[in-house]
Amino acid sequence: MSQSAFAFVPGHVTGFFSAHPNEDPTKAGSRGAGVTVADGVTVRLEAGDGVELNGEPTAIESVDRVLGALRATAHVVIETDLPLGAGFGVSGAAALGTALATNAVFGRGLSENELVTIAHGAEVQAGTGLGDVVAQARGGVPIRLEPGSPAHGAMDGIPARGTVEYISFGELQTEEIISGETDELSAAGRQALASLVEEPTVETFIEASRRFAREAELLTPRVRETIDDVSEAGGEASMAMLGETVFALGTGLTDAGYDPERCEICLAGAHLR
Amino acid sequence: MSQSAFAFVPGHVTGFFSAHPNEDPTKAGSRGAGVTVADGVTVRLEAGDGVELNGEPTAIESVDRVLGALRATAHVVIETDLPLGAGFGVSGAAALGTALATNAVFGRGLSENELVTIAHGAEVQAGTGLGDVVAQARGGVPIRLEPGSPAHGAMDGIPARGTVEYISFGELQTEEIISGETDELSAAGRQALASLVEEPTVETFIEASRRFAREAELLTPRVRETIDDVSEAGGEASMAMLGETVFALGTGLTDAGYDPERCEICLAGAHLR
Repeated sequence: MSQSAFAFVPGHVTGFFSAHPNEDPTKAGSRGAGVTVADGVTVRLEAGDGVELNGEPTAIESVDRVLGALRATAHVVIETDLPLGAGFGVSGAAALGTALATNAVFGRGLSENELVTIAHGAEVQAGTGLGDVVAQARGGVPIRLEPGSPAHGAMDGIPARGTVEYISFGELQTEEIISGETDELSAAGRQALASLVEEPTVETFIEASRRFAREAELLTPRVRETIDDVSEAGGEASMAMLGETVFALGTGLTDAGYDPERCEICLAGAHLR
Repeated sequence: MSQSAFAFVPGHVTGFFSAHPNEDPTKAGSRGAGVTVADGVTVRLEAGDGVELNGEPTAIESVDRVLGALRATAHVVIETDLPLGAGFGVSGAAALGTALATNAVFGRGLSENELVTIAHGAEVQAGTGLGDVVAQARGGVPIRLEPGSPAHGAMDGIPARGTVEYISFGELQTEEIISGETDELSAAGRQALASLVEEPTVETFIEASRRFAREAELLTPRVRETIDDVSEAGGEASMAMLGETVFALGTGLTDAGYDPERCEICLAGAHLR
């Protein structure tokens, strides 16, 4: 390893989506929209092997696949304050951060699109996500107009700044939901995307997300109650796809009496530091 | 005007390019590559009309065209520490910042791609630039693979971080050069892009840029001498397209005995603040 490298990847909360499976993992993906947040994931490489998450040895299939694709052996040190399995795209962030750091340390000479494609494909093949990687590479409030890696997908964004609050009650199994029956979910996702494209504002995004969560029957009782509390306090909230997590614009959760995490929309996409 | 809005757009130094005119300004543009820098342009709107640049009344056609496209009347306050007419894309930044701020203040409800398209088209029609706007919208070290606005163009990026130094000796007339005979220039630009796509690193970028500046016969005596001084001091520098400006990686200009401006590669694209 010729130099040290330290990659940062923002967290990404999807508000709504439709699933678009494909035999080619670079073409598979999702349409939808979400928000990237300044709370994220850092990745650095050390000599050795194995993956470490917040100081504990762990296994993350998408990270192993990225290392394999880049023909690299390293000990991958991942740190994050984000809750795990709660809809923040931590596995996608770990894969993308590993791709950026490995390219720098091992001098692989690949472009950003190539690294995003490798991380996206790894995440799809691991079954842990469909759209976080391309959103995390972009930053801001990404709209996934067409599914897949940069060569196949298409993105836009909502021009927005501001604060996001979130509170997480636990995990949901992404793999079970995105590998199961997704017809109804995807119909709701298509409708949400159409309304957002019509008016790409954060207000429309969160309204469309709330309708999606309801129609796709993904709301848990605690999530439903929290979203209702935020609405009653005059705020806007919805559910993170896929986690038992509520996110709100501005100080929506605090105003409703909760004690949430708070961070800014992340202006930059994934990058070396 | 319903709220205040303050947009930031990074400066963008093109290292090499090929010109791709088209009757449709959303399809016209350039291929090439450059680096966005954290020194940039801020734009805010006040009640009234007219454009103000660093406290002085001025006229910027691309800004007027953006306001016209968004059917808005406002006094546009533009501030920047970047040198003018020196290859930093200030007119493109002013156009893009005006689009972002106007959309926010007047509640136009457009997406980022739509605003970039308006600013890009305004810049092309004003004849003041072909590729700065799409690069400034992206941030990082953008590669323009295909020319034009987001719906028509294609972009990639070099995964890089670090410092850029620059020194400016004066203006060059972008309009004269890009509206003149560009065949030789564009042949050199295509060759430079091919070599960068082969190996997308900052070292290749600056080498390809230097070769382009030489082959396109754009080097002025002072620029040539400064680039040579940086090379002799062991650094890497090239010329900003289009200005009498030298930019260098890291501390290349300082190491060669110059007193340059210094800033970081801008990680984020244009955004509201």
